Amino acid sequence: MTDYDSQSLQLHKQLRGKWEIHSRVPLKSRDDLSRAYTPGVAAVCEAIAINPAAAYEMTMKGNSVAIVSDGSAVLGLGNIGARAALPVMEGKAILFKAFADIDGVPLVVDTQDSQAIINTVRAIAPTFGGINLEDIAAPACFEIEDALQDLGIPVFHDDQHGTAIVLLAALINASKVTGKPLEEMKVVINGAGAAGTAIAKLLRCVGHDPSVCMPVKDILICDSRGIISADRDDLTDAKRQLLVFANQQGVAGSLQDALVGADVFIGVSKGNLLTADDIRTMNRDPIILAMANPIPEIMPDLAHEAGAAVVGTGRSDFPNQVNNVLVFPGIFRGALDAAAARISESMKIAAAHALADAVSQPSAEAILPDPLDHSVAYLIAAAVKAAAIAEGIGHEPADS
Amino acid sequence: MTDYDSQSLQLHKQLRGKWEIHSRVPLKSRDDLSRAYTPGVAAVCEAIAINPAAAYEMTMKGNSVAIVSDGSAVLGLGNIGARAALPVMEGKAILFKAFADIDGVPLVVDTQDSQAIINTVRAIAPTFGGINLEDIAAPACFEIEDALQDLGIPVFHDDQHGTAIVLLAALINASKVTGKPLEEMKVVINGAGAAGTAIAKLLRCVGHDPSVCMPVKDILICDSRGIISADRDDLTDAKRQLLVFANQQGVAGSLQDALVGADVFIGVSKGNLLTADDIRTMNRDPIILAMANPIPEIMPDLAHEAGAAVVGTGRSDFPNQVNNVLVFPGIFRGALDAAAARISESMKIAAAHALADAVSQPSAEAILPDPLDHSVAYLIAAAVKAAAIAEGIGHEPADS
Repeated sequence: MTDYDSQSLQLHKQLRGKWEIHSRVPLKSRDDLSRAYTPGVAAVCEAIAINPAAAYEMTMKGNSVAIVSDGSAVLGLGNIGARAALPVMEGKAILFKAFADIDGVPLVVDTQDSQAIINTVRAIAPTFGGINLEDIAAPACFEIEDALQDLGIPVFHDDQHGTAIVLLAALINASKVTGKPLEEMKVVINGAGAAGTAIAKLLRCVGHDPSVCMPVKDILICDSRGIISADRDDLTDAKRQLLVFANQQGVAGSLQDALVGADVFIGVSKGNLLTADDIRTMNRDPIILAMANPIPEIMPDLAHEAGAAVVGTGRSDFPNQVNNVLVFPGIFRGALDAAAARISESMKIAAAHALADAVSQPSAEAILPDPLDHSVAYLIAAAVKAAAIAEGIGHEPADS
Repeated sequence: MTDYDSQSLQLHKQLRGKWEIHSRVPLKSRDDLSRAYTPGVAAVCEAIAINPAAAYEMTMKGNSVAIVSDGSAVLGLGNIGARAALPVMEGKAILFKAFADIDGVPLVVDTQDSQAIINTVRAIAPTFGGINLEDIAAPACFEIEDALQDLGIPVFHDDQHGTAIVLLAALINASKVTGKPLEEMKVVINGAGAAGTAIAKLLRCVGHDPSVCMPVKDILICDSRGIISADRDDLTDAKRQLLVFANQQGVAGSLQDALVGADVFIGVSKGNLLTADDIRTMNRDPIILAMANPIPEIMPDLAHEAGAAVVGTGRSDFPNQVNNVLVFPGIFRGALDAAAARISESMKIAAAHALADAVSQPSAEAILPDPLDHSVAYLIAAAVKAAAIAEGIGHEPADS
């Protein structure tokens, strides 16, 4: 047990909940009660019954996001179920508040049936301005998110898109540092689950307006058995679909085969599976983004010794921490500020560029801002809101 | 539009949510993040995965209640739907916090199908220590609540039982004031919906241990067509079932017929439908609890002129305000403090007696405490917790 483990256990036992609600109105007098509750509240209810959009202006809907998980893929712990996932969702809720003043509501669900989760999210949707799907295993996460895009509020699986956006921002700035144009990079993604899939799609601009997205042309995706390729007979449907936009040359082989001559390694897999010798087979000035947690695919010092030009990990104790907290507060802040009906591809691209631009002078040791920098979420939010309005899926809020 | 209406509209537009979340942990440093979120939180998740009961000790579960409504019976407004119900649920959430330090989470649901609401509540249950069903129309409210009693956390329809408990407390103290024993009272309930049904059941001790409950023997329930009686051919199933415990003499007729010689009128119906002449036909020193809002079934001054000994209404501008806020914070506080699996009949009876006992010297002008009295919820909580433990459906919390 690490120091953080025991400190965290102690903190959680002491608090019994990291999260609490506060009233934003006084409740001392009968007049207070009559305005905040009955009888006055009836006029507010009637105003919303006549004009449902007024819920954004007069209730929590305009500033709240449900953080929904079935506990099927929690951190590196796997399928630990709903109750055991709750501490993570509470943590996410307080990060939403700290970084973007959003009221995040943890909602862990006692089912791992995709249709039941879809039905539950549909049912509770009127309460919220957005839904953050969290720690739901592939392929259910794809099915659930896809089925909910018509809900009228953003439904965003952070493990997929939050990760993909922060990765794209990291690559944009790594491109500036190394002088390698993004679209000419040969990228190897190790890990073909939710995150790996979303990263590949975002880098390949799948579903994106090509005018706002420069696609990375050469992407190989590997799973634990090697390169995802058409000749394999062990692929799930979800993995087979990756071949629509990845591995266009039809390469087969191992991770090591994939890395020969590659510019970028993106690891969303397991600790310690990349060696210095692997890196030495890559193109000059390789970019290593090794995000397995808490042990990255290769430790940064070893990667640098092997010639890596830029190294990022998920860890806070090395430079270039690639952390979703840089993205999810800002992207939801922007979506809520535009009362957006969904989070579109152009909003994701806008978020990645805003995040990259938040670093004024990228260097090998600083391709991303510090995750504790509280200005980042608002820079992303402004870009996301503008993209939503430009695309016509959001609007400026009504005056209060 | 009343002053409260316009003030309430202005307040809600200005706030955009009466409710917000606060972090109970600092999030300034990397160490803070490592304890509240990753990597430290993983140890907390694992502890709960091994021992699910630990969720009460280490997460929001032990102190949170979902406030679930489909918006089908909101205040006096009727079926205005989920979004328009949200301001009421937010109001309830801040009352939970103000009176009992409970974190109430509004959840309005976009369905009025009983089974879909049942499924939704089952799905989100791991997050919460209790479920407050609110503003759901009869008979769906009965079906939904009954189906969820095996959930392992309390599921309590406040419009039924909160109202019934505060009414029983009012009658206990009105009994002391008038010298009429509760069990000898002839009671007429006008209104056969959720509240009227629950009041009748609680007064008749349906499902209760007779050793803790003295049943009111003579209860007539009226709807808009008169006394609920076996000879009527227009009764719904729910109304027909009332005859199992009400109207044991098989009386038929109008509300006016019911009132002749009655000791108590309980109105959960509509404004201005009781006349002074109606009251004059009742027994000496009648007790009038006229709870239609905002206009009671009869105004207090008129009732007193007609000879009423005790008059209560739902309004804050007359003595004896009969308001659910006197009950729901305390009953859930007690249930959460015992990690109770449900709210039993003996817990409801204990709550009513604790509420009645909170008035040290009941008088005609003071049969209930002031709804703004912040000590009441904790008196009720202590009695409810003790009743839960005595019945074996709750326990003392583990030491933190």
